Amino acid sequence: MAECIFCRIIAGEIPAEITYQDEVLVAFRDIHPLAPVHLLIVPRRHVESLAETGEEDQAWLGRVQVVAAALARREGIAGSGFRLVVNCGPDAGQEVPHLHYHLIGGRTLGGMV
Amino acid sequence: MAECIFCRIIAGEIPAEITYQDEVLVAFRDIHPLAPVHLLIVPRRHVESLAETGEEDQAWLGRVQVVAAALARREGIAGSGFRLVVNCGPDAGQEVPHLHYHLIGGRTLGGMV
Repeated sequence: MAECIFCRIIAGEIPAEITYQDEVLVAFRDIHPLAPVHLLIVPRRHVESLAETGEEDQAWLGRVQVVAAALARREGIAGSGFRLVVNCGPDAGQEVPHLHYHLIGGRTLGGMV
Repeated sequence: MAECIFCRIIAGEIPAEITYQDEVLVAFRDIHPLAPVHLLIVPRRHVESLAETGEEDQAWLGRVQVVAAALARREGIAGSGFRLVVNCGPDAGQEVPHLHYHLIGGRTLGGMV
């Protein structure tokens, strides 16, 4: 997906502050953070939405959650609290059509919708 | 956890509109829905927060994501869009100390924090 901004970040073609990477996932800081901590956790593989995943994706989807928890601890927000959000499709305002989980914390958060 | 409202729902001691269950997860409608579709997906086991999960929890955490996608399709919001949210700890306003994922859709959603 040569046009996808997240695929280009993963490929190193666009700079980003990468805070974690492994064989299936990459995490980097959102360039428009909504809170002191705002990371995006994305699969290396171009998957557009959670809506199109199934049983075959269970392992790496679980890994996103485990990595989110580890990054929350590393960022010092595991105790104070954090929100993990995935927006899928137009009603949720998904902006980049490459599945991404927002890890947000570091201040008291408002409502979730 | 005899005091936990979600453990009591899972045990059938408190009524809820259960829309899905398997050996590890239960999903039911939020009694104070924020949108036309608002389900809670919870592990049967009492886990307080995503913050306390690790590698050993990867499989069931992945299952939460797969079930969320399947429920979005079943509820008719996979195409229009939906948000999957987990709030952990005080800064996120976590109300019930039993890990739960909110699946929300059926209308245009506002900001995520």
